[in-house]
Amino acid sequence: MTTADNGATFDVLVVGCGFMGSALARAFAGSGLSVAAWNRTSERAEALSEAGVVAVSDLAAAVQGTDLVVVCMASYDNVYSAMESIDTWRGNLIVNLTTATPEQSDSFARWAAARGIEALDGSIFNYPFEVGTPDAYLVYSGPLSAWMRGKSVLELLGPSRHVSSSPGSSSELMLGMVAYLVPAISSVVEATTYLARRGMPREVLLGVADYLTESLKKAMRGAVDAIERDEQDTDQATLENFAESVESALVAFAAEGLNPRLLRATEDTLMAARDLGLGERGIFAQTKVL
Amino acid sequence: MTTADNGATFDVLVVGCGFMGSALARAFAGSGLSVAAWNRTSERAEALSEAGVVAVSDLAAAVQGTDLVVVCMASYDNVYSAMESIDTWRGNLIVNLTTATPEQSDSFARWAAARGIEALDGSIFNYPFEVGTPDAYLVYSGPLSAWMRGKSVLELLGPSRHVSSSPGSSSELMLGMVAYLVPAISSVVEATTYLARRGMPREVLLGVADYLTESLKKAMRGAVDAIERDEQDTDQATLENFAESVESALVAFAAEGLNPRLLRATEDTLMAARDLGLGERGIFAQTKVL
Repeated sequence: MTTADNGATFDVLVVGCGFMGSALARAFAGSGLSVAAWNRTSERAEALSEAGVVAVSDLAAAVQGTDLVVVCMASYDNVYSAMESIDTWRGNLIVNLTTATPEQSDSFARWAAARGIEALDGSIFNYPFEVGTPDAYLVYSGPLSAWMRGKSVLELLGPSRHVSSSPGSSSELMLGMVAYLVPAISSVVEATTYLARRGMPREVLLGVADYLTESLKKAMRGAVDAIERDEQDTDQATLENFAESVESALVAFAAEGLNPRLLRATEDTLMAARDLGLGERGIFAQTKVL
Repeated sequence: MTTADNGATFDVLVVGCGFMGSALARAFAGSGLSVAAWNRTSERAEALSEAGVVAVSDLAAAVQGTDLVVVCMASYDNVYSAMESIDTWRGNLIVNLTTATPEQSDSFARWAAARGIEALDGSIFNYPFEVGTPDAYLVYSGPLSAWMRGKSVLELLGPSRHVSSSPGSSSELMLGMVAYLVPAISSVVEATTYLARRGMPREVLLGVADYLTESLKKAMRGAVDAIERDEQDTDQATLENFAESVESALVAFAAEGLNPRLLRATEDTLMAARDLGLGERGIFAQTKVL
């Protein structure tokens, strides 16, 4: 195994070389930085040598030689287990991109502070293949000073933003994103399955997709206003109108022998809102029955 | 009440002057066409006079004087009830924009054919205030000859397309659109409610909204391919990966005291797919458990 010499220095050390960690290391190296990589099983770090990344076996030594440490592991247990071997820190900046709950992010911030390490918590919204391209999207939370220290290097990974100084914020945003994106994709599957069974031509489906995307962008902006300001009135389409259209769709799906769980859950929410007397408000009044 | 004289002719007759019908009549008139409008209760038709629309009381006479009849009523019962008064047709083109099930659309096509009327069935995806702007979106189905006959006038209402010659197609597309858009908006409400409670800044929410919109556009295109070709493999994120992220989000929402029905329905679907051995496929494999 290639080993970093004592005294070797790097611009970035990447800890964890799974799909995502490897993509991060490659993106840094491709931007011209000197990059070290460590992984519990060394093969995955060594596989990055063709991208100019130096695989290191001594994590403690690599931390001494690198100011910026980017961590991306399968779990926080793995993170602590790897870091245990390090006795002394030199005031490094650790950017932890391991997927976490807000509580895990808070704990890690305390762990880092106790060792004189500056820590940023980050979440990656994109797929590995998008790292280092304009299609990536990364968010960070933690002290503004830590963000200012890491920003210029982290932006090499793609569009990036600092959410807030609260360590758990990027994890919260990630969970909120999951709660929107995954159900939305699941409803795409339900709708597309129905339409494909009815023989709807592919070009029609793709044409309407672009229109719906624009509608959703407006809906997201509308929802933020309606929920933050607690104003859910409308003069265009009432919650009752939406409930009626969902009823019709459920009848059609049932006739096709389909079991659309998302559409039925939507009906449940709309009915709960109607039962609460919110039928004449807009659809964002659903926030009252969550 | 203003009454069309016997012998008066118009470019378009709009039947039904609710919010949407009124918007249609105004858009036609605003484009310079001569427009007649009929409504069961005459006040709503008369209110359009300030937009240059002529309110008519004799529907049968107006049909004799107008080649193109656009119908937009609250229900198909209303449509048939209005049309009963007409004994003779002159081979008009009727464009029926009343919201329907595919079966109602098919029945109307037969009703029209029996009377020597060409009929198009249409669905309006946009809000009334968007009619006549580039933000509108209308789809039509029925004989291609009928579409060619009405196209140049119908396109004055906004972006429009002919879906297929099957009369029920535009209704099917509308129901599929409802099955995607309404659940997606409901999940926007769930995600935004969580993030607002956690104090996520408005500008962060709006920033991430644009990224998510682009992600969803890609997901919709991916879903069409994955479902039509029956290929749901992935080398980026497995259905199991999505299930784990949804689990984490459910824990966070529960900690916040929220009841996210859409997110839980998504979990149900993902679990059903996993139980079927689809965990290593991509998320579009959900189509197998619908």
